[in-house]
Amino acid sequence: MTESNQQNPSSTPRARVLSGMRPTGRLHLGNYMGALYNWVQLQHEYECYFFIADYHALTTDYADTSKLKENVQEVALDFLSAGLDPKRCTIFIQSHVPQHAELHLLLSMFTPLSLLERVPSYKDQQEQLREKDLATYGFLGYPLLQSADILLYQPDFVPVGQDQAAHVELTREVARRFNQLYSPKRLVGTDAASLAEEPDPARLILPEPEVLLTPTPKLPGIDGRKMSKSYGNSILLSDVPGSVLEKMSRMTNGGQRNPQSKPGNPDICPVGDMHALFSKPMVNDMIRERCKTAEIHCVQCKEIASASINLHLHPIRERREQLEKNPDEVWSILERGAAEAVKRAEATMDQVRSVTGLSRNRPISSQVKRAFVTSESSREGHDLSLQTVWWDQEPNLRAKNVRDYWLSSIVPVEVKLTQDSDRVFVTWKKKRVYVTTSREDLEGRWGFEAKPKSYELLALLCWDKELTLHDFIVPQVVYQAPWTAYKKAHKDENLIFWMSRSGSQYYLELPGAEPIEITAYRGQYGPMN
Amino acid sequence: MTESNQQNPSSTPRARVLSGMRPTGRLHLGNYMGALYNWVQLQHEYECYFFIADYHALTTDYADTSKLKENVQEVALDFLSAGLDPKRCTIFIQSHVPQHAELHLLLSMFTPLSLLERVPSYKDQQEQLREKDLATYGFLGYPLLQSADILLYQPDFVPVGQDQAAHVELTREVARRFNQLYSPKRLVGTDAASLAEEPDPARLILPEPEVLLTPTPKLPGIDGRKMSKSYGNSILLSDVPGSVLEKMSRMTNGGQRNPQSKPGNPDICPVGDMHALFSKPMVNDMIRERCKTAEIHCVQCKEIASASINLHLHPIRERREQLEKNPDEVWSILERGAAEAVKRAEATMDQVRSVTGLSRNRPISSQVKRAFVTSESSREGHDLSLQTVWWDQEPNLRAKNVRDYWLSSIVPVEVKLTQDSDRVFVTWKKKRVYVTTSREDLEGRWGFEAKPKSYELLALLCWDKELTLHDFIVPQVVYQAPWTAYKKAHKDENLIFWMSRSGSQYYLELPGAEPIEITAYRGQYGPMN
Repeated sequence: MTESNQQNPSSTPRARVLSGMRPTGRLHLGNYMGALYNWVQLQHEYECYFFIADYHALTTDYADTSKLKENVQEVALDFLSAGLDPKRCTIFIQSHVPQHAELHLLLSMFTPLSLLERVPSYKDQQEQLREKDLATYGFLGYPLLQSADILLYQPDFVPVGQDQAAHVELTREVARRFNQLYSPKRLVGTDAASLAEEPDPARLILPEPEVLLTPTPKLPGIDGRKMSKSYGNSILLSDVPGSVLEKMSRMTNGGQRNPQSKPGNPDICPVGDMHALFSKPMVNDMIRERCKTAEIHCVQCKEIASASINLHLHPIRERREQLEKNPDEVWSILERGAAEAVKRAEATMDQVRSVTGLSRNRPISSQVKRAFVTSESSREGHDLSLQTVWWDQEPNLRAKNVRDYWLSSIVPVEVKLTQDSDRVFVTWKKKRVYVTTSREDLEGRWGFEAKPKSYELLALLCWDKELTLHDFIVPQVVYQAPWTAYKKAHKDENLIFWMSRSGSQYYLELPGAEPIEITAYRGQYGPMN
Repeated sequence: MTESNQQNPSSTPRARVLSGMRPTGRLHLGNYMGALYNWVQLQHEYECYFFIADYHALTTDYADTSKLKENVQEVALDFLSAGLDPKRCTIFIQSHVPQHAELHLLLSMFTPLSLLERVPSYKDQQEQLREKDLATYGFLGYPLLQSADILLYQPDFVPVGQDQAAHVELTREVARRFNQLYSPKRLVGTDAASLAEEPDPARLILPEPEVLLTPTPKLPGIDGRKMSKSYGNSILLSDVPGSVLEKMSRMTNGGQRNPQSKPGNPDICPVGDMHALFSKPMVNDMIRERCKTAEIHCVQCKEIASASINLHLHPIRERREQLEKNPDEVWSILERGAAEAVKRAEATMDQVRSVTGLSRNRPISSQVKRAFVTSESSREGHDLSLQTVWWDQEPNLRAKNVRDYWLSSIVPVEVKLTQDSDRVFVTWKKKRVYVTTSREDLEGRWGFEAKPKSYELLALLCWDKELTLHDFIVPQVVYQAPWTAYKKAHKDENLIFWMSRSGSQYYLELPGAEPIEITAYRGQYGPMN
C-alpha cells in the first residue's frame, strides 16, 4: 500500500480483519511470534480490529479477577510497543463494546447445545484446568462468544495459525445458521416445482469469514517445551536485556553436545530455533555450521541468540518505556478504539436487530405520516415534545433519530428520497439533498457543519428549545456564492455555518457573507420534485 | 401514599419492584388478572420497573420473529390501557437496555450448568414445545437471563404468584454466588483461629430479592381449561363488547344443569369463576343462589357475566382507543422508559464491572497525579487533548469523566474530597463544593446549571475547544449576593449561569449581576483547606 493510499483510505476499501487476545498479563515471545507480530504486518494491508478479550479471561478465571484490569493494561502496552499503530488499526477492550454481549445472547437463541459440546477444547480444557470449576454455562458458551466477537465486525478474514483454523469453523457454522434464519432470501430453482428460498448471497447479514493463515513458527521456552506462561518458561517482550541473556543462558540445548567437543544438531536444539527466528540469516548459517562442527561453545551460541533477540526487542522496549510514562495515553487510545469499534459493531447490530424483530426504530405509521403532511400547522413547525429523550442523546444518534423522524413523518409521501450516504439523500429527479440537524444552542442559534461539496438542496432541520422542529429546504442558488468561495479557499475543510432567527424570520449565516433570509423555504418541499 | 408524597417521591424512598412479561401479542384476561392487574396496584406503593421481555420471546420463537415487533407494541398498548402510568412506573422493552445482555454474560461465567439443567421448566417446556428445537444454548440459559433481568435493577421484591415463587429461587442462588465471589467482604469469628471472610451484608452488590406474593386467581378459558393463547380459549383485554358476549355465550358450564331445570354448582362452573372475579359481590351472590336453585338459566347467567367483564374492560378499551390513534406517544413512553431503565441498570453495572475487573474507568496512576499537581503549566490549564472522545459523549457521562479526571489528576493530593452526591463533594474541613463541568459553546462561553443551594465553594471546570481544561475554585463570598437573590426570587428553580473570557480574563456571569472577574481563582485550591 502506498503512502497516498493511506492518507485517503476511503479510496480503496480494504478487506477487514479481526482478531483478539486474552489478557494474560505481559506477553511473551510465543504470544508475539504466534500472533502480534503478524498483526503488525496485517495493519498495513487490511482494515484491522484487534481486541483484548477480557470477557474471555472470565470464562476460566472468574474466581479471581483482581489482576484482570492490570493484565489488560499490560497487554495494551505490549500491543502498542510491538508496533500496532492506532492510526492504522482499531485497538480496544472487548467489554467496552457492549454489542459483544448483545450479539452473543442473540446467537445463543438458535445455537444447538450439541454444537458447543462438540468443540474439542471444551472437554480438553476442563481436563487441563481441573482445579477450576469449569462446568459453567459461560465456559460452555465461550466458543459462541468468540463467534459473536468475530461476526460483530463482519470481517472478511480471521488471522489464525494452521492449528487453530478449525476454531473458525464454528463461527462459520453459526453465521450460516443465522443467515439461513434471518438474512434476506432470494428464489432459486428452474421451474415452479423446484423453486426454493435461500439466503441471497449479495445480502448476507453475517457473511462467513475466511481463515487467513498466518505463520506460527515453533517457539520453544527455556525448558524446550512450548513457551507458555503456565510453564514458567517464558521470555517476555518486556524483559530487560540482562534478563533475556540470563534466561537464554539457562535454555536447554536438547540434551546434546556433552561434552562440548561433540558436534550438535541445531535442528533439535531450542537455541537453534531461536536463531532461526531472530538471528540474521548470515549469523544463523554460521551458528548452524559451527554447531555441527563443534566449533562454537553452547555458551557463546546462547549469547549470540540473546543478542539477536535483544536487537529485535530493542525498539519494542523503547516504545514501552515511553508509554509506561504516559498510561493516560494508552487509555485514551483504548477509549478511542472502543468508540470506533462501537460504531462498527452498531452498524452490524442495526441490521441484526432489524431482521430479528429487535429494531429500536419506531415502526412507521402511515397514518401519522399523512397527518403530518396535511397538517395546517406544518408551516409553524413540527411538535417533537414527545421526543424529549432525543435532546440529550449522543450527537450521532440524536441526528439519526431526528433525520429518521423527518424522513418518515414530515417529508411528503410524493417526495421519494433514496439514501446515498449518512447525510446525503437523492430525490427521484436525482437531486442531491444534504440533510443536517441541529438543536438550538444557548445563544438561540443553530450550528451546522458540512463538507463544502455540491448539493442541489440543503435540508436544515432546526430543533428549538420548545422542542419544535423547523424544516427548511434551501435550493443551491440561495447559498451557492459563499459556499463555493469557501470551498475554493479551504479545500476539503468542513464548513461551519449557522441558522438564526429574529422574530419569525430565519437567516442562514455562511462565512464571509451577509445573513440570507430563508424564511420562505420553510416546509417548502417543492424544490425536491 | 398521600398526594404530597407523590409530588416529592425522593422524600420517602420506596422499595423497588421489577417484573416482566413476554410479548405474546394482545393480552388476555388470564395475563391481566395474573400479573398486569397486580402491577397497576403496585405502582402506587413501590418504585416499579416493568418490561416487555422480547429477548425471552426469542428463546422459544427464534425461528419466526416476523411478529415480534408488532407483539411488543400490542403488549405496550395493553400495559398502558390497563392503567400502568408512565409517571408512576418505568415501562420499557428489554432489548433496548443492553445491560441485560451484559449482566447475563457476566453471570454465566460462574453459573454451573447443573443449576440450569435442574430448572423444572427446562425439560417440561422442551417436552411441551416438541415441534420447536429447544436444545439450544439460549433456551438452557433463559432462567439465567431472567436472573440478570431481575438483579440488574437491585430490586427489593419480585411480584409473582404462589406457583412461580420457586422461579425466584434461582435468581437468589445466582445473587448469592455473585456476592460470595465479588461483594466486599468483612471478617467474622470470635478469635484469630475462627476468623473468616464473608460478604458484608451492608455492601452486597446484588442483594437477593424477596418474593412478593400477588394474587393469581383461577381464570378459566371458554373451554374450562386454564386461559391460554395456545389453547385458543382466550378473552382479550382488547376484545369489543360483542366479542366478549359471544365468547362467554360459548363458555362451558362444567357439563352440569342438563336439563336447565336441574340445580347447579357455581364452584365447579367456569362462568361462576368469572362472576367471582368480575361481578359485584351482590350480583355474584345472587347468581350463585339462583344457580343452586335453578332459578336462573345459564344463558342469562353468561350474559350477566359478560356485562360484568365489559364494565371492567370499558375504561381499558377507551384508553386503548386513544393510544392506538397515537402510536408515536406509546413509542415515546417506551423510549423514555428505556432511558430511565438504562440509568438504573448502569448504576448496578458500574458496581458489577468494578468488582469483576471490567471497570471502564481509567486506573488512577499516582505518578500522573503528582505530575499534574506540580506541573508549572497548571495555571495555564490542563491538557485534555488525549480525551477528545469525551467531547461528544452523552452529557452525563461526559460530565462524569471530566469530574473523575479532575478528582484523580488535578485536585492536589493534600485536598481530601469525599463524595456527598453526584456533583457535591465535601472537603475534610466540611466545606461543601459544588463541582460542575461545561464544554465551550459555539459562542465561546460556558453554560452551567445548578440548584441555587448553599455551597461554600464552586468548582467550575471549563473545557475549551482546544481541549484545555480550566479549573476555577470560587469561594461563596464571590457569588453569594446574586446567588441568594436568585434563590429567593425563584425558589427551587435551577439557576443558569455563565463563564466567559476576554483575553486571559475570566468572568462569572450570574443573572441580575454584573460579570465578576474570577481569573484569580484559577487552579486556586487553597480555599478547599
